[in-house]
Amino acid sequence: MSTMRAVQVTGYHDNLRAAEVPIPVPEGPLDVVVRIGGAGVCRTDLHILEGQWAEKTGVPLPYTIGHENAGWVHAVGSAVTNVAEGDKVIVHPLITCGLCRACRAGDDMHCENGRFPGIDTDGGYADYLRTSARSLVRIDDSLEPADVAALADAGLTAYHVAAKAARRLTPRDRCVVIGAGGLGHIGIQVLKAISPAELIVVDRNPDALKLAVSIGADHGVLADGTQVEQVLDRTGGHGAEVVVDFVGEGGATADGVRMLRRAGDYHVVGYGENIDVPTIDIISTEISFVGNLVGSYSDLSDLMALAARGAVTLHTAKYALDDFQTALDDLDAGRVRGRAVLVP
Amino acid sequence: MSTMRAVQVTGYHDNLRAAEVPIPVPEGPLDVVVRIGGAGVCRTDLHILEGQWAEKTGVPLPYTIGHENAGWVHAVGSAVTNVAEGDKVIVHPLITCGLCRACRAGDDMHCENGRFPGIDTDGGYADYLRTSARSLVRIDDSLEPADVAALADAGLTAYHVAAKAARRLTPRDRCVVIGAGGLGHIGIQVLKAISPAELIVVDRNPDALKLAVSIGADHGVLADGTQVEQVLDRTGGHGAEVVVDFVGEGGATADGVRMLRRAGDYHVVGYGENIDVPTIDIISTEISFVGNLVGSYSDLSDLMALAARGAVTLHTAKYALDDFQTALDDLDAGRVRGRAVLVP
Amino acid sequence: MSTMRAVQVTGYHDNLRAAEVPIPVPEGPLDVVVRIGGAGVCRTDLHILEGQWAEKTGVPLPYTIGHENAGWVHAVGSAVTNVAEGDKVIVHPLITCGLCRACRAGDDMHCENGRFPGIDTDGGYADYLRTSARSLVRIDDSLEPADVAALADAGLTAYHVAAKAARRLTPRDRCVVIGAGGLGHIGIQVLKAISPAELIVVDRNPDALKLAVSIGADHGVLADGTQVEQVLDRTGGHGAEVVVDFVGEGGATADGVRMLRRAGDYHVVGYGENIDVPTIDIISTEISFVGNLVGSYSDLSDLMALAARGAVTLHTAKYALDDFQTALDDLDAGRVRGRAVLVP
Amino acid sequence: MSTMRAVQVTGYHDNLRAAEVPIPVPEGPLDVVVRIGGAGVCRTDLHILEGQWAEKTGVPLPYTIGHENAGWVHAVGSAVTNVAEGDKVIVHPLITCGLCRACRAGDDMHCENGRFPGIDTDGGYADYLRTSARSLVRIDDSLEPADVAALADAGLTAYHVAAKAARRLTPRDRCVVIGAGGLGHIGIQVLKAISPAELIVVDRNPDALKLAVSIGADHGVLADGTQVEQVLDRTGGHGAEVVVDFVGEGGATADGVRMLRRAGDYHVVGYGENIDVPTIDIISTEISFVGNLVGSYSDLSDLMALAARGAVTLHTAKYALDDFQTALDDLDAGRVRGRAVLVP
Repeated sequence: MSTMRAVQVTGYHDNLRAAEVPIPVPEGPLDVVVRIGGAGVCRTDLHILEGQWAEKTGVPLPYTIGHENAGWVHAVGSAVTNVAEGDKVIVHPLITCGLCRACRAGDDMHCENGRFPGIDTDGGYADYLRTSARSLVRIDDSLEPADVAALADAGLTAYHVAAKAARRLTPRDRCVVIGAGGLGHIGIQVLKAISPAELIVVDRNPDALKLAVSIGADHGVLADGTQVEQVLDRTGGHGAEVVVDFVGEGGATADGVRMLRRAGDYHVVGYGENIDVPTIDIISTEISFVGNLVGSYSDLSDLMALAARGAVTLHTAKYALDDFQTALDDLDAGRVRGRAVLVP
Repeated sequence: MSTMRAVQVTGYHDNLRAAEVPIPVPEGPLDVVVRIGGAGVCRTDLHILEGQWAEKTGVPLPYTIGHENAGWVHAVGSAVTNVAEGDKVIVHPLITCGLCRACRAGDDMHCENGRFPGIDTDGGYADYLRTSARSLVRIDDSLEPADVAALADAGLTAYHVAAKAARRLTPRDRCVVIGAGGLGHIGIQVLKAISPAELIVVDRNPDALKLAVSIGADHGVLADGTQVEQVLDRTGGHGAEVVVDFVGEGGATADGVRMLRRAGDYHVVGYGENIDVPTIDIISTEISFVGNLVGSYSDLSDLMALAARGAVTLHTAKYALDDFQTALDDLDAGRVRGRAVLVP
Repeated sequence: MSTMRAVQVTGYHDNLRAAEVPIPVPEGPLDVVVRIGGAGVCRTDLHILEGQWAEKTGVPLPYTIGHENAGWVHAVGSAVTNVAEGDKVIVHPLITCGLCRACRAGDDMHCENGRFPGIDTDGGYADYLRTSARSLVRIDDSLEPADVAALADAGLTAYHVAAKAARRLTPRDRCVVIGAGGLGHIGIQVLKAISPAELIVVDRNPDALKLAVSIGADHGVLADGTQVEQVLDRTGGHGAEVVVDFVGEGGATADGVRMLRRAGDYHVVGYGENIDVPTIDIISTEISFVGNLVGSYSDLSDLMALAARGAVTLHTAKYALDDFQTALDDLDAGRVRGRAVLVP
Repeated sequence: MSTMRAVQVTGYHDNLRAAEVPIPVPEGPLDVVVRIGGAGVCRTDLHILEGQWAEKTGVPLPYTIGHENAGWVHAVGSAVTNVAEGDKVIVHPLITCGLCRACRAGDDMHCENGRFPGIDTDGGYADYLRTSARSLVRIDDSLEPADVAALADAGLTAYHVAAKAARRLTPRDRCVVIGAGGLGHIGIQVLKAISPAELIVVDRNPDALKLAVSIGADHGVLADGTQVEQVLDRTGGHGAEVVVDFVGEGGATADGVRMLRRAGDYHVVGYGENIDVPTIDIISTEISFVGNLVGSYSDLSDLMALAARGAVTLHTAKYALDDFQTALDDLDAGRVRGRAVLVP
């Protein structure tokens, strides 16, 4: 068995295609090949097919997509010491160098030499994936790769912002979460687990709010046009010490800033529109706008610790790898509850 | 002598007028009356006369302006224990309650019950000023009130942002300072004193750059249209870890963001234009925009410690109190080098 | 009714005595008189009677003891603005000046001018107590003074250390709590509420361990002589990132240091023996020993927020004020479960 | 030329011996061989010969000593990307794995898999040294290996503690440095460069104090038996916010604790005696004792940035490699001013 299945981008504005390709082998001394147990299907995959990333990455076609991966170690390079064949692992989405200043400081998501399997090199919609020893987090026996794969990117981003936001949150603080969708759903669970602040979740979907409250939100606020006033009412007219914005479009940021207390932090995660605020308002209230990228390797390790004790769970809809087109169609049509995962 | 001189706003779009008013006395148990040794003349005073603050503060006319004050304690209320008659002091610009959450945390510039002499109640263009025991910092014997008065607001703002920015600065980091004018001039001295980072100062005035380098800047960059490229050249193409923007108008923020490294902090101090940046740029580089207000009482104490050892100095042009109109005219016409100070 | 009941120290090595004394009135402009709703009975009160504090405080006899107080505002001084007659409050154990450097930074427990009612001036075993406006935290409608009084000192100390310890605790860290008695019991609840770390509680009493697990500890370790080995087993042989020692005597510190991981923090709260460790061991493992005093006003406010939502509860045994001797006897004989509280 | 000179331990309580050994080659893909430009001669080398480390390291004899190394990259393993032949480098004293939790967090001095050339494997008293790509910091063109070699361990330790201590130091704080010898001399320069605190240096040698003041100390205090009183006098009777103890023996710690202010940090660097302090003193003043090991790779990079701009300099006495015995004899006899360095 020297070939495997891989689902590839062969052209933009075209469907993905199944291919039979060689099973990757470790090329460098720190390479690791992972047998895929689950590969998350992400909205970014749809954007890739639409060509939105073509120019940015310049990845040559065809290539294999899939950037949310988990599975078992299949083969290791000559210098790998931290994992061994058979280990159950989740794959950090970046391959990082370990030597640049960002890597040395633990901020490996800012690696100056990073690569991103599934985005700019072959990813995990396949039987096997080649990555680096530095990208692998061993997971608890109680966790299954297919159940946690979607935490590798979406969940990791949510963990990262929650951990940054939580640094200043005390029992008297309020944290507003805008958007209780895929990332928000994880973010709420993480904030509940690591912070004592009161959590106020804003969404336009009443069902999403019900779910939010069931997993730890203290209050759900329906975004019916009165959401700013509702948040101000719940915060003594002052606004919240922290706003975490998982939406970032459709007017969310203008609303969100009005929900923020003096000296508050506005965490930007979702994107689409501009932050457009007069400097005089920024200085007279001394607020901050904080950007948030995907998390570091350490963040992923922390997130897996929460997952192992059941503090963070994710609803997944599983599809056979060969049914990749159905999974993408379901995602595109809004038919997936939670996250879709391909299982080879 | 139960009356004193006071320079007052009697109407907007009109000149200030000299008046003879009662010398203030301590009314509350924590009130303190300060004999003015120097009162800084600030551009905000011109804006007040233009009516820009009229609606915001609703201060009844006539009232005495002047919000940068230093002098000697003249009389104290019944419960004052921290200063005594004759003490040489600088006056924190805010009267704060000491009891709200912000005051209890040392962030008294966010006091929920603050008042601002010279802005919304009688200030220091006068022989005497009434303030609170909580607002007084005793200054070193080597310092004279008229020499430090202008540090009470402009200098304090510069200290505050420099101290916030310096928290993350290490010997390998670069800090860009945009604007080497009044505040920038203090900010550069403070950054030099409290941080080991390389300081790159950007200004459109070659003389200001020369001064900047003479007081501690490592490099001066002339804002001649190539300033972004010059900063990138000096930072290996990456940009600086921190930008402190004392300008905030005329395109400074758009330029400044381009000078910022991944994961960098953009400190907003000057104001005028909007911060207007796509959320996708904020998240993909993980940068932050940090607002900065005037400093706290602790910041002012720290700044006076630097002033006492000569690490921060300020060029002042002194005018007799009765020559207030000349001082304002000189300021308005750009004839003041450093800061103008009225001396009763 | 111008007199009230007060329970006083009239001589050391003697019983407390009930006295009829004048009801205190506000003397300074910031004084507040509180009608006592509950006064905690603390082991320190026994030590006072044994004369252990006599020399240290030099308090003149007779005086009224009781340093864990809560109740309702009865009368306020002329300059008090933050509370009003009838407000339900818990009393921070220190009267602080609000003006020294420590107070200005929010570390009011280090006030240079602090007094301590019940220790060095009249306390709360009485119908009324005089304190300062700065010492009062309003409590939630759902809380009763007699139920929270014992949180004013013992609980506050536990909150303070838990909050300090939690700053570095992540989901992958382990925190060992030595001692699940009065303070430990609160500390465990606080750590559970504000930190995601795994909590390992060590005690020699199996019942205390059962209680610890029921309120949030992840593991109970019986101190049967093998406690160090048990903790090492549970931490992969490395030890815990943080140890919080509520015992501090009987060999607890020597054991505790062996439970600590490289670069770990050892929080000292309980006292009795010496920390006695070779400097070479401190540097080669890079551990820290961190002292912990009672908490600040902000800590007490945070603790009351946790109490209001039921995250911290305390079992109390209530006694009428006149039954003070029974309460002390019960405490001395180990007959009190939780904390004894006098209710006037 | 396939062999080189190496100075080796061939037996404890015996002199070092010169040997002719094979030039090391990269064995692993991340190995790097450095041509030595300078190897610092450290007191630890004397201790090794006395057998003090024999049992701890279990290093097989003969082996080459020398743990403070700098030079030029001579050969690199197949996977090395961060340095190239000819690069001028200083060598971090540890070979670290880059994969354990400590390494991932930037705390590589706590690497779980670290090795220490010169201590537990062949070091740098030789023409060539084998280390890892992860251990190399490129140095500025203006610096020479023989001039900075001694910063690789002694200087790095001093930088590390200074950087940790400086995190809390503001312009109003005082930092006492105990010991102005080898490490203290670097520590003072670093503290001066990165912190605005007032530096008070304590030493029993008047010449060392003079040097200390010439490189940045604000005050020198002669340890003549009145040093505690002198420090208290200079700090208003309160003591210093931070004490950095480079001595750790001969009663330094007992003295040092008395020089510490409430809520102060006592940094332990020198070693020999025990920290032996009653827990009640630790909690009633809320002081901390902070252990300090050698610095991380990032610390070394920061230190080299300071060295490149002349903010940290070191007096060195250079010896030819073949004169190793003279160098050790001079060190042992106290005849070396600054640090001795072997130059091949």
